[in-house]
This record gives sequence, C-alpha cells and structure tokens, in this order.
Amino acid sequence: MGKPLSRKVALKLTPPTEADPRADLQRIQDALGFPAPAELDVLRALPQVLPEANWEITVTLAFDGREERMIRVEPGDTRAAHYGVAVDLGSTTVCMSLVDLNSGAVISRQSTYNHQIAFGEDILNRVFYAKGGQDRLEALHTAALDSFREVLALLEADSGIPVEEYDAMVVAGNTTMLHFFLGLDAFAVFASPYAPHAAWFDFYRARELDLPQNGYVFCVPCRANYLGGDILAGMVATGLPEGEEIGVFLDIGTNGELVVGNRHFLIAGAGAAGPALEGGVVKTGMRAVEGAVSAVTLDGTALSCTTIGGGVPKGLCGSGIVDLIAALFLTGRIDRLGKFRTEAPGVTVTNGEPGFCYAPGLTFWQSDLDAFLRTKAAANTMVGYILEEVGIPMEQVERFYVAGAFGTHLDKEAAVTIGLYPDLPRERIVNAGNSSLAGAEKILGDRDWIPKLREILDKMEYIQFGAVADFVSRMTAAMAIPHTDLGLYPTVAKKLEARGSMVK
Amino acid sequence: MGKPLSRKVALKLTPPTEADPRADLQRIQDALGFPAPAELDVLRALPQVLPEANWEITVTLAFDGREERMIRVEPGDTRAAHYGVAVDLGSTTVCMSLVDLNSGAVISRQSTYNHQIAFGEDILNRVFYAKGGQDRLEALHTAALDSFREVLALLEADSGIPVEEYDAMVVAGNTTMLHFFLGLDAFAVFASPYAPHAAWFDFYRARELDLPQNGYVFCVPCRANYLGGDILAGMVATGLPEGEEIGVFLDIGTNGELVVGNRHFLIAGAGAAGPALEGGVVKTGMRAVEGAVSAVTLDGTALSCTTIGGGVPKGLCGSGIVDLIAALFLTGRIDRLGKFRTEAPGVTVTNGEPGFCYAPGLTFWQSDLDAFLRTKAAANTMVGYILEEVGIPMEQVERFYVAGAFGTHLDKEAAVTIGLYPDLPRERIVNAGNSSLAGAEKILGDRDWIPKLREILDKMEYIQFGAVADFVSRMTAAMAIPHTDLGLYPTVAKKLEARGSMVK
Repeated sequence: MGKPLSRKVALKLTPPTEADPRADLQRIQDALGFPAPAELDVLRALPQVLPEANWEITVTLAFDGREERMIRVEPGDTRAAHYGVAVDLGSTTVCMSLVDLNSGAVISRQSTYNHQIAFGEDILNRVFYAKGGQDRLEALHTAALDSFREVLALLEADSGIPVEEYDAMVVAGNTTMLHFFLGLDAFAVFASPYAPHAAWFDFYRARELDLPQNGYVFCVPCRANYLGGDILAGMVATGLPEGEEIGVFLDIGTNGELVVGNRHFLIAGAGAAGPALEGGVVKTGMRAVEGAVSAVTLDGTALSCTTIGGGVPKGLCGSGIVDLIAALFLTGRIDRLGKFRTEAPGVTVTNGEPGFCYAPGLTFWQSDLDAFLRTKAAANTMVGYILEEVGIPMEQVERFYVAGAFGTHLDKEAAVTIGLYPDLPRERIVNAGNSSLAGAEKILGDRDWIPKLREILDKMEYIQFGAVADFVSRMTAAMAIPHTDLGLYPTVAKKLEARGSMVK
Repeated sequence: MGKPLSRKVALKLTPPTEADPRADLQRIQDALGFPAPAELDVLRALPQVLPEANWEITVTLAFDGREERMIRVEPGDTRAAHYGVAVDLGSTTVCMSLVDLNSGAVISRQSTYNHQIAFGEDILNRVFYAKGGQDRLEALHTAALDSFREVLALLEADSGIPVEEYDAMVVAGNTTMLHFFLGLDAFAVFASPYAPHAAWFDFYRARELDLPQNGYVFCVPCRANYLGGDILAGMVATGLPEGEEIGVFLDIGTNGELVVGNRHFLIAGAGAAGPALEGGVVKTGMRAVEGAVSAVTLDGTALSCTTIGGGVPKGLCGSGIVDLIAALFLTGRIDRLGKFRTEAPGVTVTNGEPGFCYAPGLTFWQSDLDAFLRTKAAANTMVGYILEEVGIPMEQVERFYVAGAFGTHLDKEAAVTIGLYPDLPRERIVNAGNSSLAGAEKILGDRDWIPKLREILDKMEYIQFGAVADFVSRMTAAMAIPHTDLGLYPTVAKKLEARGSMVK
C-alpha cells in the first residue's frame, strides 16, 4: 500500500491563549507542517468542531493532482475510518470497489448496468444520439451519473459505511465513457481526425460532478480516441510498463485494444474487432447469465454442454462459443478454413446454410462462425502486426494478458486451439480479469501512479490499425483455424495429428 | 502595472489532423506552455467553441493562490476586455472599484451601505446578534453578500460591462467583516484569547461564495483579531513596509489601528478608540452628508460654519468636530485641560453642562468634548507608545499616513492643533484616503503582492494596547489639548502665543 489519494491526520492542537492567539486555520496548518488550503465547508466547521473536540481532531487531506487540500475536519481520532472508491465505467456495466484506504482491502464490490443502455446497447448509437443536441448529451451524462449513484448506494447498503465518508474516487473507462461521464460530447472520438476533447483529466470535486461522496474524482487518462483510461488502468494493474519481461496486453470486445512492451518501450494499438466475442452477433448468443452454455467438453466426437446454473441451455455466452468452435474443429466438423463440413456427423443444412445443433432447438450457424472468425482474426493480426513491427518473435513474449470479463471465463486451451490466443506455454497466458477496476484500485491506493501515468502516456506509441495498409490481407490469413501458418501453432498441430483419423 | 490576478492569453491553435490528434485540452495546454487545469465549464465549452472559433481563442487564466487555472475560453482575441474588482468591505460602507486589468485604470467606483447595518450600526451588536444561532450568522453572511451583489450591479450599470466578465476580486476588510463575508462566526475576534478562525484566507471560486462574477476571490489577510486585511491593504497602498523611510500608518475609527516601521521592521497595534471620530457619540454628530458642518473657520474670535451642500447646518461630521474644537481652543473657549471656560463668549451652561451653540439650535457639549478627547488621546498615546518602544523620536517619522474617510476630509492644521496628529512638518502628514480599497486595487493588479503579504505578516509584531500596563495613565496625559507636554507641539505653542491675549 502506497500513499493513497487521500489521507487522514490526527492532530492534538494546543488550544489558543492570549499569548498564542494564532488563527484556528493557521494552528491546524502549523500542526500539519504545511499550509494545506481548507475547503470552505471545512473552514466553516472550525468554530464549532475545534472547541467541542477539545482541540483534538482528525483532518482529511485530499490530493487534487497537485497538492493536498483539507476536505474534512472531525472531532477525535477517526483515522481508522478511511475509504475510497475505484470505478470501472464500462459501456455495459458500472462496477465499483469500496476500498479501505488504511489496508488497501476491498470492503465491497458492487455493480449495475450502465443506465446509458437505454440510449443504445452499442456505444456508437449513444454517440449518435448525443450528437442530436445539448439536452441529449445531458441525458447521457445524467444516465452515467445515475449509474454511479446507484452503485454508490449499493456500496453504502452492503458496507454500512455512508457515502459521505468516501474520500477519493478513481474512474477508469474508455475515452467515450469518460467524455460522457464529464458531460463532454464524444463524437470527436469516432470522427476524423479522432482528437478527443480531453485525454488527461484534471481532478474535480465530487460535488462539482453532482456525486454524493467527499473529496476529488480522478479519471484515468486516455492515450487516444480508441485507447482509453481502461487500458491505462490495465497497465497499472498488470505492471506491464514497469518490468523487464516483454508483455502483451489484449482487451477484445467490439473494439480490440492491445499494448506490447516492457519498461523500455510500449506500443499500443486499437481497431475494430466486431461484437462477436460479446455474444452480440451469434444468433443464439447471450450474456453470461443463467442458462448460457459456458463450456463445451468432448468425449471422443461427442459434445456435452455445461450451462451456468446447470439448467436447460438457452444460448451461448462468449466462453461457450470458443469452446464450441474448438470442439467442432477438433472433431472435424469445421475445416481449417472455417467452413462447416456438411458431411460431418450432426452438421445440417437449413435453407442452404450449414449449422450444428449444439442443444435442443439451438443451432450454431456458418454465419455465426464467420463473424466470430473475423473477430479472432482481428485480435490475432493486431498482436502479430505489432510484434513484427518491433521485431520480437512470439516466443519471447513472457506474459500474454487477456483483459475483460471475456478473458475471465475463457478456456485457455480452447482459445489457443482456434487461434484466438497465441500458442504460448499456457502459464504465460494470464487472465487479467477486470484489470480496469484493478488498476483504478491501485491508483486509488498510491498517488505515485499519477506521475507514472504521465510517463507511460509519453512513452506509449499508438497505432490505429484501421490505417495499416495490409491489415485486411493479414486478417484474411488469420481467418483460418488456428492460422494459415500452422507452424505458429505447434501444440494445435499435435492435437490435430493425434486426432488425425477423425479430422481427415 | 504588475502581473494581475488573472490574465488573458490569445492562442492560434493548429487544428487537429489525423497526424496530430492531440486532445483539445492538451492542444491548448501545449500552446500555453504549461498544463493549466481547466475548470469543468471550460472543458465543457471546448467542443463548441474551438471549431466555431476556427481554433483562434482567448483563454482566461486565474491565479488561485498557487497556480493559474483556465476559467474561460472565448472565440477570437478578447484580450482588450479584461476586468477585476477591488473591494473595501467596511462595516458601514461596501465600496468597489472596477479595474481594467490591462491598464490598471479604475473604470468605475461604486458603493452602498453594508446591509448588515440592519443588524446593528455597531460591529459588536452584529457579533452578538450572530452569536444567537446559525440562522442569525447566516443572515449576516447573506447581508454581506447582498451588499456585494448590489455594488456589483452598480458597477455593471455604470460601466456597461457585464459582471460575468469580472475575472478576479480582492476583498479588504477588518477581521470581523471578513469572517462574516465567508460565513464564519466572529465572536472569537472579540473574546479572549482573541484567536480568529482564519487570518490567511485561501482563494475561493466566486460561485462557491454565491457571487455572480467569474474567477476567484482573495481576501487580504489579517495580522490579528483587531488588525485586519484593511490595514494590510493599507500597507500595500502606502508602500510603508517597502521603503527606508520610517512611516506611521494610523486608522482611527471605533477602533484605532496603527503600524509603525519601514522595510526593516514593522510594529502594529490596535486598541479601542471610541466612536467619537465617526460622529457617533457627539449629540449633534452626523454622517458626512448634506447639512453636516464639515469645516469651521475663524475670523478673530468669530466662528463660521461651512456645511456640505451649503445649506442650513443640521449637525457635525468628523472634520467639523475637529475644526470646531480647534477653533474653540484657539479662541480660549476651551482650556488646555479640555474644559469649557464658562466665562468665555458664547459658552453657555444648560442644566449644569457647559456647551457652545455653533449654529442655530445646535450645541456642542462638554460631554461631547470629553468623548472626543478620549478618542484623540487614545490615538495619540498609541503612536507615542510604539515610537517610544522602538526608540524613535517623532521627528524621525518621515511619513504620517492617516487612513479612512475621516482622514480624507480632516483639516491637518486643526488636527495638529488639538493634538490628534503629531506636530510634524505638514507635508509629512499624508492623507491616505481609502487605503483599504487602494491596497486591494494594487493586489488585484499585481499577484506578487501575495508572497509579499506573507512576508509583511511574518515581520509585523503586534501589540494589543488593551494589555499595556500604563496605557491608561499615558492616555490621561494625552487628554490635554494639544498634550500635557506642550513641548511636543511647538507650532501649536506658537499659535497660542500669537493669540496670547485671547487665550489668557
């Protein structure tokens, strides 16, 4: 635990006398050892609090990005109660951790759906909606704040600690989400020349942002339009920019974001990946909730599905899709070019489209497979492109971090089999989980990250994959399963060999 | 003109391109040459203002006591329009100057009665009123703000410059007035151990203080309970703490405040003086408005009164009192011990009390004279005491500044004659006028005064005259006209000699 964004200092002041009639505020500043400015409500509380507390008080100091300011004065020694909030502001989910700033321990973790979903599940729909006028932008802004207030209330209810006692907040989110959160139009994020309105954000008082907690709010900075504070938080969470080991950090959703590097260099890139991984384009795709097929196992050529909650399958979530494709590929029902073999057992053709019925009434179609393979090809190509640019072969990658909820539930083996992940020793493939939230927690607990974030941003080169000339032809090569160049996937080649008879 | 508390910078930004997609905020900060934080409303204005202005903008930077923050962004080059407000927050009058921060010129000066007068003309009445509860303190606080808003509206009406364009404000006032202005209880100012709640004030956003102008508000700091920001502003106005010349700065009202020193030392003191100089205790005393006798001239032994507006006398204002006493003394109607000579021409006795009818129906009584002499004795003793403490004879005083409206209208010769001012060469006696307002104007125009104010405060020793052991016996000696020790007043002695026959 480093120096958190806020701190509490207990002071035993000498009461004023005629021989020492220093002003209350100065008396406190002298005891602190530096002239911390006092917020107006702190100043106004002094006349009552100081004598009532018999001049023994606790001062809460909040870092505002430059210096510490007094944001609270309380009677007695209240240092034991000191809290902050880390936020992952996702386009789908707003997730918060209430952190004990004495120990760094997470007291409660709560989340809700982002209220902005009412204006479009897809982030682009929201951006176009907000473009329609100031009132619409304000509606999206309010929806973000409502989501915050809802989760803060959940934290309060779960922990029993009133929201007024939360003294610092760090928010990680992508560039668009942070724009909306601060009430900024986000159209510039998606339109040429792709210059956001802000990328490094100042600290703002919670009350200035209409939020109920105390102290300041810091938004994790963005590197570029498509490379937001969530990725920077991921850097903090993984420590990738600090070590000697070469790491790859991959966050794939509708957009794919990628960072490659170590303490000596950082190259980042982003590009469209398609919403396939989020279950959005697969016809029977669904969120990872009860009834979703989350895993598919093989017994010879027979497939068996496991659902969340153990009940009847209702559709496929992301991890289920990857497992299913791997199983269909290994059992020869899908060929290396990503096409269903219509002659293979269980593969049917309906209205001219091949598919596989993976559970009663549920079919995975060729078109589903095509969409998914475009996404996996995009991810694979981004990683390959950057490594090639810097001249680092895949086997020198010591850590391959996969961020996001998707990575959390995915079976590594299946992901390698279909070529979504590289064929690295499995222990090098690290599930980074919600690294956006984890990074926000780390920054909350150690303000020294703030200058380091500046350094990381300065060091980080940024590639917009949309502008890379041969990206499409590279992607085509990566559409194959696991890849056109099977030499890149030796363990998959071995598996195919072992199953030789089945695959043909 | 130094560096004002705010400044405007015109920027011609290079518009963003795909090759240079820096965020708007960073683009501005890069052009400024330093990362000035942007207030939230500035940030929110960027998406519209920048393209509309064709990327040619003017940024207003406000100093917040530590650094400059962006408080406005406007299209085009608006540097010519740059304004600030200096305030003298008096217990009776709130006076403001609207200053052109490009030239330092005062565009308009307006004032109103302090709305707090509704809670007591005397400052102590207000303090006791506020002591009665939070709602009462709030009422006094609101009254101060209402006074501010009224004068700001007058400035706006007179200048045609909207209040939103005023970018900085400096407020000078005594410790109590500043406490009420910020919403702080002021009882501590008057009660042992006399420790105010704050003496060095942080910068606060105008909107945080519920004021309509832009930017920050700086209150000139106080040295002690009875030595407020008005006196510190007086130091700035006169330059007394900067030069080699030994100066005396005297501000006498209900309270007397005094500073003696130069760039090498500063000794300040304060003590009760009584409200006599403000016309408060003289029975026919009145404010310096139409009908007030403001001057009394002598023709032999005959007195003639001049009134403000030239009409029928209605009473005496401060300068009239001093003139009248000097005339009555020089014509032998008052003796050196400050008693009416009942045998002198025009002196009458009514119900046992001597008096002089200075205009039809208007009498100046012995009790009026007694009250006035106590005040003048207090002022005289304070000056004498400090000079004696530092071992500086009066003749080494190069500048004797008299502050306040009182000093503005007073006849120097009369004030020396009655012993209110020391008997110095008259050109050394300087009428400092509203030095509180003048000092606030200087600070507004030059932020370098802020660290200098710290130095002045640190250097300034403070004596509370109430605690000086032999103060009362010294005062008694100073009750005589001009003083018990006539040797201190050689020019008065000469005048008496010249009029020998009349004085007897």
